[in-house]
Amino acid sequence: MTKVVRGVGAGEPEVSRRRERAERILDAAAALILRWGFQKTTLDDVSRQAGVAKGTMYLHWKTREELFRALIGREKLAMAEDLRQRISADPAGATLRGILKYSALALMQRPLLKAVLMRDIDVLGKLAQGEQSRTAHVEKLMGFNVYLELLRDYGLIRTDLSLRAQIYMFSAIFMGFFFVAPLMPDEYTLSDEELADLMAETVHRTLEADRPVPADELQTISQNFMHYLDLAVEKAQTQFQKEVES
Amino acid sequence: MTKVVRGVGAGEPEVSRRRERAERILDAAAALILRWGFQKTTLDDVSRQAGVAKGTMYLHWKTREELFRALIGREKLAMAEDLRQRISADPAGATLRGILKYSALALMQRPLLKAVLMRDIDVLGKLAQGEQSRTAHVEKLMGFNVYLELLRDYGLIRTDLSLRAQIYMFSAIFMGFFFVAPLMPDEYTLSDEELADLMAETVHRTLEADRPVPADELQTISQNFMHYLDLAVEKAQTQFQKEVES
Repeated sequence: MTKVVRGVGAGEPEVSRRRERAERILDAAAALILRWGFQKTTLDDVSRQAGVAKGTMYLHWKTREELFRALIGREKLAMAEDLRQRISADPAGATLRGILKYSALALMQRPLLKAVLMRDIDVLGKLAQGEQSRTAHVEKLMGFNVYLELLRDYGLIRTDLSLRAQIYMFSAIFMGFFFVAPLMPDEYTLSDEELADLMAETVHRTLEADRPVPADELQTISQNFMHYLDLAVEKAQTQFQKEVES
Repeated sequence: MTKVVRGVGAGEPEVSRRRERAERILDAAAALILRWGFQKTTLDDVSRQAGVAKGTMYLHWKTREELFRALIGREKLAMAEDLRQRISADPAGATLRGILKYSALALMQRPLLKAVLMRDIDVLGKLAQGEQSRTAHVEKLMGFNVYLELLRDYGLIRTDLSLRAQIYMFSAIFMGFFFVAPLMPDEYTLSDEELADLMAETVHRTLEADRPVPADELQTISQNFMHYLDLAVEKAQTQFQKEVES
């Protein structure tokens, strides 16, 4: 969390206060939307819950939609940072199996982001039907595309199928496990860890080459992935800062 | 389609007329629900479209929900019959890969059934959120369970994972491909056949044993599956007949 630094330069305390207030508003909005859904959450509710005057809140966001976009931006940033930590803590973290597993675990911690990915109507209301959830999916895929190609070049991914087919399979498996979980009978209930492992195992069997990966290759791959992730974090950070501080 | 048989016995023409009328009402309801969604389709709309007096329609179904249940019953029956044909036309049709592929193709022909499976809010409205879509999923799985166990006994399915894990994987893959299709970028658009093949390939790689299957084994498996399917068709038929003729 951002600390309020006092007396350093002219504009900084003001910026910090502004940022701290923005975070408080976002916290309130997240709690309300998860509890009551986007449809039933008004800006009035959010300002009351955050303890911020409505007029002041308008200095930050003028519509629920803008507020929601900032909220999702913050979640994405936190998720990317979380993912970075999880993957760097595991030597095999940057293999396709590892990325899948840790992405799933990081997403499970973020119910709002998961709701966007799953187009959850209970949480998102009409937002779930919009074009934006498709756009979000496409954006994510296009970034991932590059990394999958790299794994292919390193021989970590099978080449008996086109990259296009593999991206389709990968997406279907990832979304499928999240989608099917609430539909399964009670006796099939899995822990987060079990679900992530099963999903990663499915992607592994479907796409990864059947050979042990030498440690030095793993390291190169890992460095590459961290670079890719750093770029994503940086981009998300810049965008989020612009939204909360402007 | 049912032919109207005249003059055979006392009650039969009446039963045939009743059945023919029921089918007409269901056809009208299916067209309207697919076009406008369940939420916007009233019993008035259906009676007008079917050319059946509203009072007469009430003899068949008293609520939209009852009408919808009968409609889904009819679709399930048609799907099971379609699946039976597709699978019996392919010697390897009853392997897991075959069943997946043909189930996917048969489902794609039935947008209403697909909407139920995918909990499509545009088509189903509030029905999509109910418990019934989960129940439908559970029912389907429980029937399939038995067949998957049989394939395991025949050594056609790997045994390095529990049956429970395999059923989870199988469900996630099947649902995942349907779920992700509308979210994929345009350049990833697949034909029905391509989608079904890719889905079947994913299940094959994840679950099927890596050995060629002798022709006589295929035949036994196929007979078993046909028996399983016949039971399902029979059950669906009895239920549907009860609903449209009583």
